[in-house]
Amino acid sequence: MKLATLRTRYGTTAALLLPGVGFLPLPAGDVGGLLAGPDWRGTVAAAVDTAAAGATVPEREADLAPLLPRAAKVICCGLNYGDHIAEMGRDRPEFPTLFVKFADSLAGARDVLEVAGSAKVDWEAELAVVVGATLHRADEAEAAAAIAGYTVANDVSMRDWQNRTLQWFQGKAFDAATPVGPVLVTADEFPAGAGFTVRGFVNGEPVQAGDTSTLVFGPARLLSYISRFTTLRAGDLVLTGTPGGVGMGMVPPRFLADGDVLRTEIDGIGVLENVLRIHPQDQDLHQQLVTKESAA
Amino acid sequence: MKLATLRTRYGTTAALLLPGVGFLPLPAGDVGGLLAGPDWRGTVAAAVDTAAAGATVPEREADLAPLLPRAAKVICCGLNYGDHIAEMGRDRPEFPTLFVKFADSLAGARDVLEVAGSAKVDWEAELAVVVGATLHRADEAEAAAAIAGYTVANDVSMRDWQNRTLQWFQGKAFDAATPVGPVLVTADEFPAGAGFTVRGFVNGEPVQAGDTSTLVFGPARLLSYISRFTTLRAGDLVLTGTPGGVGMGMVPPRFLADGDVLRTEIDGIGVLENVLRIHPQDQDLHQQLVTKESAA
Repeated sequence: MKLATLRTRYGTTAALLLPGVGFLPLPAGDVGGLLAGPDWRGTVAAAVDTAAAGATVPEREADLAPLLPRAAKVICCGLNYGDHIAEMGRDRPEFPTLFVKFADSLAGARDVLEVAGSAKVDWEAELAVVVGATLHRADEAEAAAAIAGYTVANDVSMRDWQNRTLQWFQGKAFDAATPVGPVLVTADEFPAGAGFTVRGFVNGEPVQAGDTSTLVFGPARLLSYISRFTTLRAGDLVLTGTPGGVGMGMVPPRFLADGDVLRTEIDGIGVLENVLRIHPQDQDLHQQLVTKESAA
Repeated sequence: MKLATLRTRYGTTAALLLPGVGFLPLPAGDVGGLLAGPDWRGTVAAAVDTAAAGATVPEREADLAPLLPRAAKVICCGLNYGDHIAEMGRDRPEFPTLFVKFADSLAGARDVLEVAGSAKVDWEAELAVVVGATLHRADEAEAAAAIAGYTVANDVSMRDWQNRTLQWFQGKAFDAATPVGPVLVTADEFPAGAGFTVRGFVNGEPVQAGDTSTLVFGPARLLSYISRFTTLRAGDLVLTGTPGGVGMGMVPPRFLADGDVLRTEIDGIGVLENVLRIHPQDQDLHQQLVTKESAA
């Protein structure tokens, strides 16, 4: 089953993708709201049973919102691909490196990404996990059973801000710059551990490709680990990390430019395609202040 | 004006502290919900005008909830006290070090803090700023005008988890371990820049004291900086950092023990007093897994 969140003139709605037909709106404001309901599979089945003719939105006409526009927790894992760790000559980590974004950080699968105030905008193609049930100090089996499904994300990172201090957060949480979607594929249809390829492209040129079976901390293990310190709930989102091939790691480093097209895809889930609008010269208030102080 | 969020048998409610009388319940679920309304000062005034005799809760009987139990963004600043930076022999930072907690991380002013799975629980007494209006790429004057008020927080930190990886988040976001309160003092009654002392005590022994006038990034500047990359809204919370005197910095390092009483206070706002319940030996799933793998 594939679920999406669509923008409509009345706000957003959760929707079911009917292959070859289009998106059928569901009685929930977004996929997170649907999953938080008491019986979301029943809700979907009832909507299909009672769907009126012409109730669907053709796939090409759908305006895809961020999959989880109100996610309470968006937690990301850093260095997590065996192949990437090997190419970097690093040791396999004992613990996952975790940081966060906000629901505000998320963007739709075809949204233009507007970034002001950064000159080092980089890409990170990732598999993301959508939580489907409450997890508190859960073991791996419980965590696996609580995975609603998977989606595609690009952890677009402002490296200049990320590296201003030791903590990456400020370079990771720019509003509306992390595309997520186009759909959630339910866990029963996506055996993540079997090995799917996460791919990133810039203007059509392949830059990243990673095999999800080489994740050091797989989806269930990540969710279990996180749940030891904070409760996860239906509609929360966990990004599993990016494989090698980010711009910062290139020699010389390469960053996204205004007008670039960033494509992110995972077979069996779908494709994100986002045009970048970058305004690196945009006034940075801190620099203004520093200049003002220096002049004073 | 002093505002709080109280637990009642019907959930939480925002409340106004009437000095010498008690807390008057207000028509909002918590202080964040009150601040997000169209005219919160008018709402408070109307509640006072129409208050029935006996409508207040005596201060000693009040069950204080976390001040902002549904805060969408809880953003914390690291190294930010001039005196602490000087004593550490470090340079004054050019940019604020930022990381986050969740609403779930917050606890009430008198709550018992239950911590499982950490043996290095440390304290960080802090002044916290409550956002009162939307801020998007705001300058410092706009940010100053958008401060609803101030409160006391203790950024209780699990140093073992914090130092497992380069990113501090996992040691900072344990559920219900960051007390915030007891009240919000509105900005008109608390000139933060004038210099207030943030104090921390463990079992009555003073361990921290910092002057808010020595903050490198003051409240308005922090909010302005954050608003350059993510929108702040009424009910969001920003912790301004801790002065010297944390347990990790002591020789030898000192951490909280089961039963310790952590007291955090700022003159003019109030006092947090929290008993710690620490279960360091509690099963840590990751260690279980590591052991299981080693045995296999």
